[in-house]
Amino acid sequence: MTTLQTEETTLLTRQQLRDRLQAVGDSRYHHKHPFHLKMHQGQLTRAQLQAWALNRYYYQSRIPMKDALLLAKSDDPAFRRAWRKRILDHDGDQDGYGGVEKWIQLAEATGVSRDQVIPCNGILPGVRYAVDAYLALVRDSSLLVAVASSLTELFSRDLISLRMDQMRIHYPYLVPGLAYFVGRLTQAPEDATFAFDYVATHARTRAEQEQVIAALEAKCTLLWAQLDAIEYAYVTPGNIPPGAFVPTVAD
Amino acid sequence: MTTLQTEETTLLTRQQLRDRLQAVGDSRYHHKHPFHLKMHQGQLTRAQLQAWALNRYYYQSRIPMKDALLLAKSDDPAFRRAWRKRILDHDGDQDGYGGVEKWIQLAEATGVSRDQVIPCNGILPGVRYAVDAYLALVRDSSLLVAVASSLTELFSRDLISLRMDQMRIHYPYLVPGLAYFVGRLTQAPEDATFAFDYVATHARTRAEQEQVIAALEAKCTLLWAQLDAIEYAYVTPGNIPPGAFVPTVAD
Repeated sequence: MTTLQTEETTLLTRQQLRDRLQAVGDSRYHHKHPFHLKMHQGQLTRAQLQAWALNRYYYQSRIPMKDALLLAKSDDPAFRRAWRKRILDHDGDQDGYGGVEKWIQLAEATGVSRDQVIPCNGILPGVRYAVDAYLALVRDSSLLVAVASSLTELFSRDLISLRMDQMRIHYPYLVPGLAYFVGRLTQAPEDATFAFDYVATHARTRAEQEQVIAALEAKCTLLWAQLDAIEYAYVTPGNIPPGAFVPTVAD
Repeated sequence: MTTLQTEETTLLTRQQLRDRLQAVGDSRYHHKHPFHLKMHQGQLTRAQLQAWALNRYYYQSRIPMKDALLLAKSDDPAFRRAWRKRILDHDGDQDGYGGVEKWIQLAEATGVSRDQVIPCNGILPGVRYAVDAYLALVRDSSLLVAVASSLTELFSRDLISLRMDQMRIHYPYLVPGLAYFVGRLTQAPEDATFAFDYVATHARTRAEQEQVIAALEAKCTLLWAQLDAIEYAYVTPGNIPPGAFVPTVAD
């Protein structure tokens, strides 16, 4: 017990913190979710990819709202300038489309129309609750915890690289819709570097470091829960709940 | 009574709504506050201008946080793109300083150092409560009401033009710090045009139009309350409350 208590109050080094976060990603990030494994092995139908793209749009569309809630927590113009980049990446500007628009293009490539996607009708309740829980987490927690909850971006480049390769092989009809992932290949690592540096610098006690790690776990949980809901509803026939999206293709 | 009830449910035309908002500004905007009247007549001491600049910094520093809270309320990327301009205006980017920095330069022109301004120590409680009430209003209200609370910008260009003229005449030591006002001369009317168009379009019932008018009144009230606190504490000798900023010049 004495040893444990000593460990719990000892500040982690920057590398130890990074290793702890990596361990969370290795065990809890959604690259291992059965739905993603099926996706990358070419086992999903076009109908299932429609359901995935439409449901995940709810997450994508809320990301800039989440980032605005986070930005509102900081009284430091330099931090806000840096974080504002994320809102720009997702919303775009007059010179180019942002990530939200690019995700719509991915959904269109599955065969779901823009008009079906944008209103967020038919989103699975389990997806909606998980995404809303993310916004509540960011809204109601400290800036440190809110930033830490973005750290899944530490792991997303590898997942996205694999996904793009496998989509080109197994689902060539998606190729016109892959611009979102191309953008994230560079954006996510930049964002993760900034966020890790922020939490490594601003978590000044072991308790705060543990809050950072717990925030990443919570974020992994809510990403995983979205795929649970999608897999349950759209992989086993007969499970689509009332009011939810019904794919427009037979398979 | 019948006539009144009819009036209360009849939708205002766009021009009638604009007239009602103008009437609020004419009677409640802080251009008529005694402290501003003294300012523009050259009756304030440098010590009083220090207190004003330092206290108003709390308001200025919270504006981008307010705008981020507002941005987080919208699920429309086009709206968010438009509103993001305000955060850019206040926080700046790599190519130029924003309004928050420019306000610090104004405070420096009064003789208060940057290091005194930024930590927001010594802000009058009455100013802090009013500004915090503004953030709470935006955080807790509908997007329509939040946008409407920004409509004081309909009236700010005239006030700022007058203020710059009078400052150059009466307080020439402030001239190096007037960049904030120069920027707002063009930013505020652009912002007001967008916000008025938004509320005129999105207030679709008379009840919603009345919410818009009430939000502008509430915003005028909280601007006025800040000056009440400043005037009470710094114009009458002996009224500076414990913990509040004490000017660094005798007059």
